[in-house]
Amino acid sequence: MTIGVTSGSSVDAWFAESRAWAERELDRHLPAAATEPTRVHEAMRYAVFGGGKRLRPALVRLLGAHGGASDDACALPAVAIECVHTYSLVHDDLPCMDDDDLRRGRPTCHKVYGEALAVLAGDALLTHAFATLARVDHDAGAFVACLADAAGSVGMVGGQVLDLGLSAARASRDDVDRVHRLKTAALIASACEMGALAARASARDRAAAREYGFALGRCFQAVDDILDVTGDAATLGKTPGKDQRAEKPTLVAALGLDGARREAARLAEEARAAALALGGGPTGLSCRLVEELLVRRA
Amino acid sequence: MTIGVTSGSSVDAWFAESRAWAERELDRHLPAAATEPTRVHEAMRYAVFGGGKRLRPALVRLLGAHGGASDDACALPAVAIECVHTYSLVHDDLPCMDDDDLRRGRPTCHKVYGEALAVLAGDALLTHAFATLARVDHDAGAFVACLADAAGSVGMVGGQVLDLGLSAARASRDDVDRVHRLKTAALIASACEMGALAARASARDRAAAREYGFALGRCFQAVDDILDVTGDAATLGKTPGKDQRAEKPTLVAALGLDGARREAARLAEEARAAALALGGGPTGLSCRLVEELLVRRA
Repeated sequence: MTIGVTSGSSVDAWFAESRAWAERELDRHLPAAATEPTRVHEAMRYAVFGGGKRLRPALVRLLGAHGGASDDACALPAVAIECVHTYSLVHDDLPCMDDDDLRRGRPTCHKVYGEALAVLAGDALLTHAFATLARVDHDAGAFVACLADAAGSVGMVGGQVLDLGLSAARASRDDVDRVHRLKTAALIASACEMGALAARASARDRAAAREYGFALGRCFQAVDDILDVTGDAATLGKTPGKDQRAEKPTLVAALGLDGARREAARLAEEARAAALALGGGPTGLSCRLVEELLVRRA
Repeated sequence: MTIGVTSGSSVDAWFAESRAWAERELDRHLPAAATEPTRVHEAMRYAVFGGGKRLRPALVRLLGAHGGASDDACALPAVAIECVHTYSLVHDDLPCMDDDDLRRGRPTCHKVYGEALAVLAGDALLTHAFATLARVDHDAGAFVACLADAAGSVGMVGGQVLDLGLSAARASRDDVDRVHRLKTAALIASACEMGALAARASARDRAAAREYGFALGRCFQAVDDILDVTGDAATLGKTPGKDQRAEKPTLVAALGLDGARREAARLAEEARAAALALGGGPTGLSCRLVEELLVRRA
């Protein structure tokens, strides 16, 4: 594996490799579909193996590799964070939340298994994330604290609560930014920090990894808001214009498309600066990652 | 604090003291209602401070004291397990699950805060349980594994999945027993095991605490099934006959009232034997606890 690459095709190859690795580790560390009660394990696997990009596991692996950790040392936190991400999608798709019938071109979990089982499969995935992290062979408490703080009421869940309480018409840039920080950036920061933890990085390097993830997460979500307006279904893997129709408080709603693009470019600069502060090997890749996200997607 | 008492009034006093202690620790370790986003923290606190018996925290404290742990050493796991228990009630009460409007005489969380926020407050409580356990100052991984395994898809959530899939008319004694083991006994076993962990007990004593909790949990749930038929609203704190009307697969549905009573008495004997196997100080109280549960409630 070569990281610290600077060409686009190498970044692609590295991400493809990370994705295949994440799929293998998820398959290995999730309960088998034949485990009793089978129905909940089928639903968990249906939700997890639905064609995600595996960005968060890739970031665990990227920042792990940056600090010298092996892939194996990154596997459990990578699985855990993808379980958390997946559970959040299952619950967000519920009729009482965003009420989505499709996710990545497939029926959502509750459309296939019913609402009750979707709630429970989400609960089980969240719980499994921590059962998985508890098995890390050093500093399990630090991993659990890192992920739980990012995922909970002052992190991802808090962001979803804010999101539900805002209307597109009245949300300011600061309101939207606050949702992005909590709902998206906190978990991506935790992915990067857990990579550093897997590498047994110093407190300083751990903080730098976290900062990088946080900046990257904000940039990522800004681009996502723009793509809802400018993207096509094939690139997005979902129907464009969904946020707009649902009157979601996005950066585009708050600033207009041009304003959102300027904000995304500014956030990309911040992420690039945070990547440079990481120092060492894969900085090039980390920087490229930000560019890739913007250039290819927005 | 005197434990190992054998008179009913001392048991009462000890439980009252445990309950007050649990209330204080929950208040101390849950995010303040004024923490942003306030709405989710209000909903979390509404659900938690709804007049529960705090049985699971009391069992953490009981088995902790049995092994010589201070109350302070038991506080974080006691808070964590009550957060898990509370989240499970919030999600079980949802319209797509048991669809309950009242819990302990008050409107359920989703009736007050809406369904979306109830889902999210439950998610946040589950996450907060692990954030709390991550701060235990020794063996955090062991605590997290113990609680997550008990709460997840092969524990409490799995039990709820089985429960939803069974009909009262067709459920056998073994079906019902399986639901009880997963849905109720696994978490109560985890409460007892975490008490032993807080006391840094030997692997043997930890296993004994777990066995005791598991037996107690099965007995507790058997009595609960009987009380649905025989109890009055004042004793129960909920409407009797609810399981029957909802055609829930209970022990009474599977065995009839007399059969269920014989089964509960048999499970009480098992719990008493498990309590004796604990050895040492609070065995008397532990035994009494089982008797209390049965004599007073069924």
